[in-house]
Amino acid sequence: MSIARTPQPPYTAVIFTSLRTDGDNGYDVMSERMNRLAAEQPGFLGIESARDSLGVTVSYWSSDEAAAAWKQVSEHVIAQERGRSVWYADYQVRVATVTRSYGATGSR
Amino acid sequence: MSIARTPQPPYTAVIFTSLRTDGDNGYDVMSERMNRLAAEQPGFLGIESARDSLGVTVSYWSSDEAAAAWKQVSEHVIAQERGRSVWYADYQVRVATVTRSYGATGSR
Repeated sequence: MSIARTPQPPYTAVIFTSLRTDGDNGYDVMSERMNRLAAEQPGFLGIESARDSLGVTVSYWSSDEAAAAWKQVSEHVIAQERGRSVWYADYQVRVATVTRSYGATGSR
Repeated sequence: MSIARTPQPPYTAVIFTSLRTDGDNGYDVMSERMNRLAAEQPGFLGIESARDSLGVTVSYWSSDEAAAAWKQVSEHVIAQERGRSVWYADYQVRVATVTRSYGATGSR
């Protein structure tokens, strides 16, 4: 996982934080599949993710509409349902508009 | 680390993603100190953080102004400088306005 090379703002960030239940229960396979599938969607700009006691994943999209369309992709809908029922003890999704960005190698 | 109990949007999210250099070099002590210090600032709403190969930390603030004020706190300025020179091989900061939020226990 590396730092996403996003364009100049504005664009949309979907901040997904989660606490896992115990056991894998098919999670790792699904997680990799969803990362690949997200990257194929219109308007996908990048994804950044880390997990220790908490999981924090931020996906970047060209617009709120592009992020909302990904939420409705059928295979992703099934994964979300399994997330709620099996994989996640708790989670929160926050949709945000990125207005400024700066870093080690300048704005991106 | 648990999921932050943020209020109803809108509020500000500062998404900080980073790749560490090798070795601790005083990082863990500083990181805990900065988390404690951030929580004392006006407008602080919460923080969520995880690190594996990548570090992803999202801090939440009542406004862009509150987030900008934290960036200027002197002890934090020193930590940022040491981050750029010692701790981080690469990093990116994105300032965003959260517009929607939902989760396992409803909006928050």
